[in-house]
Amino acid sequence: MPARKQAPLREKLHEVIFEADTPAGKAFDVVLLLLIAISVLVVMLESVSVLHDRYSRLFLILEWSFTILFTLEYLLRLYCVYRPLKYAGSFFGLVDLLAILPTYIGLLISGTHYLLVIRALRLLRIFRIFKMGHFLSAGDVIIRALKASRAKITVFLSAVLLIVVIIGSVMYLVEGGKNESFSNIPLSIYWAIVTLTTVGYGDITPVTGIGQFLSALVMILGYAIIAVPTGIVSAEFISEKSSPAPAPTTTTQSCRYCGREGHAPDAIYCKFCGEKLNE
Amino acid sequence: MPARKQAPLREKLHEVIFEADTPAGKAFDVVLLLLIAISVLVVMLESVSVLHDRYSRLFLILEWSFTILFTLEYLLRLYCVYRPLKYAGSFFGLVDLLAILPTYIGLLISGTHYLLVIRALRLLRIFRIFKMGHFLSAGDVIIRALKASRAKITVFLSAVLLIVVIIGSVMYLVEGGKNESFSNIPLSIYWAIVTLTTVGYGDITPVTGIGQFLSALVMILGYAIIAVPTGIVSAEFISEKSSPAPAPTTTTQSCRYCGREGHAPDAIYCKFCGEKLNE
Amino acid sequence: MPARKQAPLREKLHEVIFEADTPAGKAFDVVLLLLIAISVLVVMLESVSVLHDRYSRLFLILEWSFTILFTLEYLLRLYCVYRPLKYAGSFFGLVDLLAILPTYIGLLISGTHYLLVIRALRLLRIFRIFKMGHFLSAGDVIIRALKASRAKITVFLSAVLLIVVIIGSVMYLVEGGKNESFSNIPLSIYWAIVTLTTVGYGDITPVTGIGQFLSALVMILGYAIIAVPTGIVSAEFISEKSSPAPAPTTTTQSCRYCGREGHAPDAIYCKFCGEKLNE
Amino acid sequence: MPARKQAPLREKLHEVIFEADTPAGKAFDVVLLLLIAISVLVVMLESVSVLHDRYSRLFLILEWSFTILFTLEYLLRLYCVYRPLKYAGSFFGLVDLLAILPTYIGLLISGTHYLLVIRALRLLRIFRIFKMGHFLSAGDVIIRALKASRAKITVFLSAVLLIVVIIGSVMYLVEGGKNESFSNIPLSIYWAIVTLTTVGYGDITPVTGIGQFLSALVMILGYAIIAVPTGIVSAEFISEKSSPAPAPTTTTQSCRYCGREGHAPDAIYCKFCGEKLNE
Repeated sequence: MPARKQAPLREKLHEVIFEADTPAGKAFDVVLLLLIAISVLVVMLESVSVLHDRYSRLFLILEWSFTILFTLEYLLRLYCVYRPLKYAGSFFGLVDLLAILPTYIGLLISGTHYLLVIRALRLLRIFRIFKMGHFLSAGDVIIRALKASRAKITVFLSAVLLIVVIIGSVMYLVEGGKNESFSNIPLSIYWAIVTLTTVGYGDITPVTGIGQFLSALVMILGYAIIAVPTGIVSAEFISEKSSPAPAPTTTTQSCRYCGREGHAPDAIYCKFCGEKLNE
Repeated sequence: MPARKQAPLREKLHEVIFEADTPAGKAFDVVLLLLIAISVLVVMLESVSVLHDRYSRLFLILEWSFTILFTLEYLLRLYCVYRPLKYAGSFFGLVDLLAILPTYIGLLISGTHYLLVIRALRLLRIFRIFKMGHFLSAGDVIIRALKASRAKITVFLSAVLLIVVIIGSVMYLVEGGKNESFSNIPLSIYWAIVTLTTVGYGDITPVTGIGQFLSALVMILGYAIIAVPTGIVSAEFISEKSSPAPAPTTTTQSCRYCGREGHAPDAIYCKFCGEKLNE
Repeated sequence: MPARKQAPLREKLHEVIFEADTPAGKAFDVVLLLLIAISVLVVMLESVSVLHDRYSRLFLILEWSFTILFTLEYLLRLYCVYRPLKYAGSFFGLVDLLAILPTYIGLLISGTHYLLVIRALRLLRIFRIFKMGHFLSAGDVIIRALKASRAKITVFLSAVLLIVVIIGSVMYLVEGGKNESFSNIPLSIYWAIVTLTTVGYGDITPVTGIGQFLSALVMILGYAIIAVPTGIVSAEFISEKSSPAPAPTTTTQSCRYCGREGHAPDAIYCKFCGEKLNE
Repeated sequence: MPARKQAPLREKLHEVIFEADTPAGKAFDVVLLLLIAISVLVVMLESVSVLHDRYSRLFLILEWSFTILFTLEYLLRLYCVYRPLKYAGSFFGLVDLLAILPTYIGLLISGTHYLLVIRALRLLRIFRIFKMGHFLSAGDVIIRALKASRAKITVFLSAVLLIVVIIGSVMYLVEGGKNESFSNIPLSIYWAIVTLTTVGYGDITPVTGIGQFLSALVMILGYAIIAVPTGIVSAEFISEKSSPAPAPTTTTQSCRYCGREGHAPDAIYCKFCGEKLNE
């Protein structure tokens, strides 16, 4: 199927904004990521009351500057993609929209603009840049190893959940009356998770002898079962190493029509919708 | 040995209640697990005093509803199995009974109904459903890897126990007089376990210089020896991966006469007692 | 070399007390270990002031009973071994002596009898019993894997020590003035170890922004480098599994003349001194 | 290229000071490391106010003794190396200078002499001595395994950073108003790191039900993802073991002209600049 006739500007824009395999496209992505990182940092710093009180005007200006910039970028993305609704409904399309909405909503309802931290999710695009070079295989190996251990990890986590529910309930019965920290079962389960994962805040600790004895058992149990997920994932990484996946055969190109990625380096037409790809 | 003549209702009931390889049997198990989960959640929430005070009537109704439901289910199980005593004496039979008793005992002795949390143990049946599909092998691999490392983990835990007894005693001698947290040896051993497993509550911490120096040694020791169980279990998982066990050759069918599981998919008669299996 | 003529009683005693491969020898070891465990438990419980105040008389009787029993055992060991000085100077000989001395010294100097906890070291004999059956290989595999990783673990721990010294010093410079918890460098290094090993008591925590930022870096570093000892030991366990050591070829027999162990099952004479072994 | 004519003293000094493969050179390195270790210990102990007040005179003498000694050593290093500027600009040259400067600067500006702790970095030379014997391969294996996992660890840490930013921000929104510990987003991110790495100080803990529920999720997440770096590094160690690197083919000799190391045992001339090496 031949490529549809299109305005060169839109074609050019698509290549720069959506792709990362041309110098301009890569530069755009790097600048965008930097701006996102800075805007997230600004939201973070604004939450520090000392800074907020002193520089409230500056924060207001910065917030609106970033929001307007990202709004423009969002509109450009909608303009240069063939099926704007498809993009708007995709994961990144939704994140891009949610990253600008809180400022506007903040005009109507105050206090909502901290939701701007959702912008951090936009940083996930960093993996698009990582895709190039040798980070591609590194990321791929991790994801493959985790996917391969999914079933085992699920069974393991189910067992862990069952254990903490039972341990938490038992500790509530043991400590409940004498220790106001264990005042109800959900709190005791929270304690069981804090202990089993070896986090150990110390905000809730057993005070009775039996409680401390049971806690010690839970800790040793936690110490022993941490070996299980580690063993599962290690085995996957080792099996990955001894039979590595074939070399990466996809580029970072995304089709302008259907928006899907995963095309081979020598692909001329999109393998999902038959449209011509950018060169 | 030919199958004994039996009421079709009992046969049907057995298939639905005890097995999970027919649509009806699976549906029954899923609904049952949901009900158990909800009833456990209700017991948990009831322990929160705010909720207990406000909705005490609702909690009472829910508790009795679940108890009556589970009592009916227990009676049905007794009815449709050939050897009720064998079922009643098995692990799940006892758990099923213990899951309803606390409510009835609560009529005589108050305060015992929190023991209902034992119902969570009934959720172990979830592994019956897991047995189907690819969770079967996942769970099997974990259990096989743990079983294979049992001897090594036992030796390791014995060594850990000996270490914490000695460390705890030494710390009692070092900190005992100056730090009321280390007021006796069992408490010092509790501290040693909290430290060695890297839980680190902070409810008991050394205050003398020597005590802090010894603690630092214990922590580094704990950091180093966590590698041992992990290494043991990893090695088992890897050896599992390189020589995987044969494909699962058992179904979730349980014999109605002797109650035992582990039958091959093509089995027509129980391999333990010779009775005919459900189709 | 023919066996020297010896009183049958001494020969019999040696077999029972020092060896664990006859029914009587095994029974003696099991009873002895139980007595040691109970005597350690008694010392522990005596340190609990509530129990000490109420049952001080009972504790006194128990302490003296155990001490007299272990003294008798020690004398018997000296009697039935050919070279008493060699035994008395060996590791277990010293531990056996240290396990009874504190009670006698306690007659002269009060407060020393808590040193009796050293008796716990006598429990190390448990590995003699473990030697039999399949625990032998389990313990051997762990020890071999740890020995094989000794050099790597040493280098790793050196690097960790260097890291905590530098991190501790930097944190002292950063937090020192503003946070009395970081009042000197040794204390800051103690904090660094608590943090790097993910124990995290919380008795010393950073309060300045820079301090918290540095702490976060230390934690992520600790999270990453825990992988190193685990990886080292895992690799050893896996290499053990793929080329397991030959089957155990030594018994638990110890020569009555030179006291050394490690004899082959078919050995009739001691391979170190040429004396005849017990049958 | 023939070796340039040189004063035998300078040649001898270079061999002793810069190299570790002659008895004199090794002895010099061992003594130097001991002196550095002691001087670092002195700086540490000086920071303890009790000791500082009592022995301030002794500390002053020790500090100046070590500084003068290390200054002499620094000057000798400059004298016996061919290109003093090259050494002065190298990592160890800078560390050697920074290790003496704080004492002199302390004459002008008080309070700076704690910067002497930077001397600990000089202890990195210990790996020069480690290079000999079987520690060489141990250290090499660790470094190679870490280098091989660099890309994967980078991707993993990026993902962890993204996770803690998002979790920290969400927890600020959830706990912010009700819990003064979560007073701003950077502090909440600090909490997220403390929790995810299972350090768990307990200086900041959630108090609301939703906050505790989210924390529990974070802990279980942290428990699961610790498996990732461990798996990555384990896989590298195992692949190292099954195909070990060739035997060490470099000595600890460093060229006197260009200062670079990594020469083969049979090398007579420096492979980087063609100058003759010490024998």
